[in-house]
This record gives sequence, structure tokens and C-alpha cells, in this order.
Amino acid sequence: MKLNERGLLVVISGPSGVGKGTIRKALFAMPDNNFCYSVSMTTRKPRPGEREGVDYFFVTREEFQKGIAEGRFLEWAEFVGEYYGTPLEYIEKQLATGNEVIIEIEVQGALQVREKMPDAVFVFIVPPSRKALEDRLQSRGTEDHGKIRERLEKANREYNLAYKYDYIVVNDEVYNAADRIYAIIRAEHAKTERSITKYNKLMEGNE
Amino acid sequence: MKLNERGLLVVISGPSGVGKGTIRKALFAMPDNNFCYSVSMTTRKPRPGEREGVDYFFVTREEFQKGIAEGRFLEWAEFVGEYYGTPLEYIEKQLATGNEVIIEIEVQGALQVREKMPDAVFVFIVPPSRKALEDRLQSRGTEDHGKIRERLEKANREYNLAYKYDYIVVNDEVYNAADRIYAIIRAEHAKTERSITKYNKLMEGNE
Repeated sequence: MKLNERGLLVVISGPSGVGKGTIRKALFAMPDNNFCYSVSMTTRKPRPGEREGVDYFFVTREEFQKGIAEGRFLEWAEFVGEYYGTPLEYIEKQLATGNEVIIEIEVQGALQVREKMPDAVFVFIVPPSRKALEDRLQSRGTEDHGKIRERLEKANREYNLAYKYDYIVVNDEVYNAADRIYAIIRAEHAKTERSITKYNKLMEGNE
Repeated sequence: MKLNERGLLVVISGPSGVGKGTIRKALFAMPDNNFCYSVSMTTRKPRPGEREGVDYFFVTREEFQKGIAEGRFLEWAEFVGEYYGTPLEYIEKQLATGNEVIIEIEVQGALQVREKMPDAVFVFIVPPSRKALEDRLQSRGTEDHGKIRERLEKANREYNLAYKYDYIVVNDEVYNAADRIYAIIRAEHAKTERSITKYNKLMEGNE
């Protein structure tokens, strides 16, 4: 029995290459979940196997800039020369019906969301060691050496922003990490500040 | 992989009759837990089936007052004419070795702990409805009507203190409630304020 009925906006972030996408997939594979994934919009080219409307909405720079101008993003960022953003309308609809909305975004974007949605839950994913992250970025092999170095430098800067998040989750093993995030979601629903109003109604015998 | 190594002090509280003891037992029955239960001290008479050193340490009023004078309690309270208290030394030892210490105490005592141990986690257990609590208090049948009415009035006052706790957990079903507390413990360990120091060491490559 949950005391609050509105869903939670859960922001999963962390340096590029830390395994955010894999953890997100493991979360969505959990039985009986009420998680919604907000599909991001981007101007970058699809990687092999990525599908339109599932992994991203792939749009042109012109389309993306129109969305920014019309205020249709919860957050957006330009990252290694490409735009990435989270469309707002779908999220609000899901939260109102009690579904948890999980968004997986870059650090730059996550901090924008914090300003707009202070009651969202912010989770920073970290690798089990610094070396593990460097190895991952180097072995991804989809981009040139300049881009890899650029990402490593960016990751180093992003590490210093961990303190701005509510939770730090170590990606030692993907199912452990996902399970920890699931625990965080359950705990957040029980937080007094989120549940006190409903609880008071319960005690007045109105529910 | 937990980023902080010190155990958590988890305070389970709520009005008398709400099922705190049953939830505590369900928590301790969970597989692979590292929970320690801090056995309370009391001057009240054992109920049928209660064992010395397991359910409580049963002591005289004189022994209890000596403990107060010597500062040997994390908290203590006088409740329906009897003393109840939590011995301090054992708790500190367990937290230092990384075990979670679960204490189950009355509302009056829990608020004393909040002052002494601000980084403890405070969970307020509530019944699924006001009527459920009244039924429970009346059917316990171990005390006279005067004491039952006294407890109901006390419970009513205690409800108004729920906002002072970190979490509100509904005891709709004992295993659900225990499982929610388990999620809270995992989430608390991932909280940035508890894990940032260890995380920074990890990133410097010292661990």
C-alpha cells in the first residue's frame, strides 16, 4: 500500500560509458513494474541496431531547435556536437496516472531537470573504479580517438558533480545496480514528505 | 557494493498496537541480512511467552533508574507507568562493524534518539486505517479497559508526530511492510550524503 499515488520522476545519470543504458534495460525487465521510459530526442545518427521511437527519436537540427523555442523539453543539451533532449508532455501524463517515469540522461541535462522538477529523484551511476570507466570508453569503438579523449575529460569533470545528486549507485553488476534503484524508488514513495498528506486523510477515515 | 561501511541505526516506531514487533521479526527472518536487534530494557512484567534477553531485559525500577543516572541509555521513556529504554554501548559497537541496528521503540523514545543520533533512519509504522488500530488494541486482551482507553488516546496524540519521521510505512501486510523497510535501508546506504566520501576515494583510485 503506497501512501502517495503520483508516480516518481527518476533521473538516472552519470558519465558517458558508465552503463546507464544497460541498467535502465535491467530495470524495465523487472516483473510487475510500473515504469515508463521517456524516449529522448536527438540529432545524432542512429548507431547500428538503434530504432526510431524506441532508443531515440531521431530528428534534424532544425526540428530540435523548434522544440527548444516552443519550450517542449524538460531538458536538452548539446553533447559532442549533437542535441539530446527529453520531451515534457508525455512525462507529466505518466506521473499523473501513477507510473514511475525513468529518464536516463547526461549529467548536463540532469542538472537542468533538478531546477525544473525539484521533487524528482536523482541517481548518479558510478563505475566500480576509475579504470573500469576508462576501459569501457576505449572499447566502445564506435568513435575516433579524439572523441574518446573528449569523453574521458568530460567524465572527469562530471565526477565532481556527484554531490548534486540524491543517490550514488555503483554499477558493480548490472542487476545489483538496477535492484538498488528499485529499492530507492520504493523508499522514496515511503518518504514522509511525499506521503504525509495521504496518511493524514487515512487517519481521518476518509480513505 | 556499498559505498559506506558504517551500519545504519534504523528506528522503527509508531503507536502501540500497530504491529511494530511483528514487522521487526519479519525483518530479522530475511535471508542474508546483517541486522542486529537491540534488546530493550523495561520494568514492566513479562507477557506470556516473552523471554529475558530476547524480548526485553526485565529489570527493577531501581536498576533502571541507576542506568539513567549513569547515561547508559540511547533513549528511555516512562509509558503507562513502566520504564522502557535502549542500552547505548551495544549499538555503537554494531554500527562500527557495519551491521544495521534495528530498534523498535515507542514514539516518545524515538524522538529522543533523533536528537542524539540525527543520522539514524526514522520509520513510522501506521495501520492501514484508524479502525484497524482500534480493533487491534481492543483485541489484545492483556490489559484492562482503562489501559486500553489510555493507549488509544496516546495513539491519537502520536499520530500527529508522524511528520517528524523520515518515512511512513503502512502495515497493510507484515511482509510488505518489512520489505519496504528493507528497501529503505538499501536506499539510505546509497544516499549521496552517506556515500560521497567513499566515492571520492574510489575515484582517486585509492580503493
